[in-house]
Amino acid sequence: MAKKSVDALRIRPGDTVRLSKYDPNDDMGWDRDAADLRTRQNRVRMAELHDLLFAANSHALLVVLQGMDTCGKDGTVRHVLTGLNPQGCRVRPFKQPTSTELDHDYLWRIHQALPARGEIGVFNRSHYEDVLVTRVLGLVSDKVAEERFEQINAWERYLTENNVVVLKLFLHISKDEQRERLQARLDDPSKNWKFSESDLEARAKWNDYQAAYADLLAACSTKQAPWYVVPANRKWVRNLVVSELIVDVLRSLKLKYPKPKLDVSKIVIPK
Amino acid sequence: MAKKSVDALRIRPGDTVRLSKYDPNDDMGWDRDAADLRTRQNRVRMAELHDLLFAANSHALLVVLQGMDTCGKDGTVRHVLTGLNPQGCRVRPFKQPTSTELDHDYLWRIHQALPARGEIGVFNRSHYEDVLVTRVLGLVSDKVAEERFEQINAWERYLTENNVVVLKLFLHISKDEQRERLQARLDDPSKNWKFSESDLEARAKWNDYQAAYADLLAACSTKQAPWYVVPANRKWVRNLVVSELIVDVLRSLKLKYPKPKLDVSKIVIPK
Repeated sequence: MAKKSVDALRIRPGDTVRLSKYDPNDDMGWDRDAADLRTRQNRVRMAELHDLLFAANSHALLVVLQGMDTCGKDGTVRHVLTGLNPQGCRVRPFKQPTSTELDHDYLWRIHQALPARGEIGVFNRSHYEDVLVTRVLGLVSDKVAEERFEQINAWERYLTENNVVVLKLFLHISKDEQRERLQARLDDPSKNWKFSESDLEARAKWNDYQAAYADLLAACSTKQAPWYVVPANRKWVRNLVVSELIVDVLRSLKLKYPKPKLDVSKIVIPK
Repeated sequence: MAKKSVDALRIRPGDTVRLSKYDPNDDMGWDRDAADLRTRQNRVRMAELHDLLFAANSHALLVVLQGMDTCGKDGTVRHVLTGLNPQGCRVRPFKQPTSTELDHDYLWRIHQALPARGEIGVFNRSHYEDVLVTRVLGLVSDKVAEERFEQINAWERYLTENNVVVLKLFLHISKDEQRERLQARLDDPSKNWKFSESDLEARAKWNDYQAAYADLLAACSTKQAPWYVVPANRKWVRNLVVSELIVDVLRSLKLKYPKPKLDVSKIVIPK
């Protein structure tokens, strides 16, 4: 089967999004061994491009990870980004806001957590929770959500204009796959502690979450800061796709090592 | 030759430190292939212990890296810590303080950068610069330096009493080795940009720096927060020693996966 380009996973501005049209089992035309090899190659390439990003010191890369519980946000970080130089790679999980954070506008804590120039930053959950869980729980009306879509688009545009590259990934799993993964947490004593009853509460509202995701994907996938729907039922496909996308976006920057500030040919290191 | 225990590299409280007694070429009784294999095994073990550290959520590990320019602080991060889950590993380089930081006491910016419980944090340079470069440049008198040694010891004691484990590593290279490494920066076009004339200024004060290091190592290697002198002329020895020390300290915590909060045997995941 022909390999599918990862660009096919990008939501086009103006698209109507129906998540049921995206197959979470999609293998993108790869078999597992070839995909694992490619992922390993991508990790090496990513490390080289990360070094260049650091040296050039002109751009930052922000990767936003979103998805239902157990969709593999932590696993993506572990499998795809392990191998990057931890200096220059910052992963920020966003949990329920603290009371100080709630005293601020919803982008306040997000803005502070941005990667610096030369860095790759990963948001494990993000400002999109403010048009998602809040909306499903009825804390935010549709009208406010729509205002926020505009605000988020404007803010992300500002970021990209200031050399923060924004790559947004929705890790797409099926409801059956989630059941199996939650069950695995119950069955494995070393994973029991990760299980929380709130996982079941969110699962009970599966359809509401899927609808809220469809809305935000449609409203906030812009030319400058696109959303991708990553098929994530198979972890090896997810790892392949995420690593491809990161390599592609870093490569597209066409960065170069900076020129030395001094004429190095004239310098002698004293004994 | 018999392998040397890494504990032999620890400065004992009350020791007089003469750096000339520590051989930066020491191979610790290892040959290179065996050492590289052991380092790789340590990286796997470190990743497992990091997962446990995160799950237990009771302790943080702070690794302080210090040493002369080109001693391999960045390289240690890249070679030893790459392979850790970047979520839960934060590396903080300390450069010249900003004007806001200078408006605060010298531990203010350091304290903010500490790893959280469950995390491994690495300081690439640290509060020890405040009894080092400042002292060599005459900005801090011997009297103030001695006051600071006491302050630092008290502060690190407070940290360890609050479950922040502190491991301090001086990466020890020879002056000849530094010359070769600086020359390599000049010779390799992709590394030229890293070269700075300030490297030569610090090199010109080599003996002053070594004396200031000897003082702080002697004064601030405490039972709870020891300093180790890591032989660092050979990168593979340095990587071996640093990985051994991190594995040892994490293992010494005897952490366990937490018990689940719920009786997981009673839970059924709904379809």
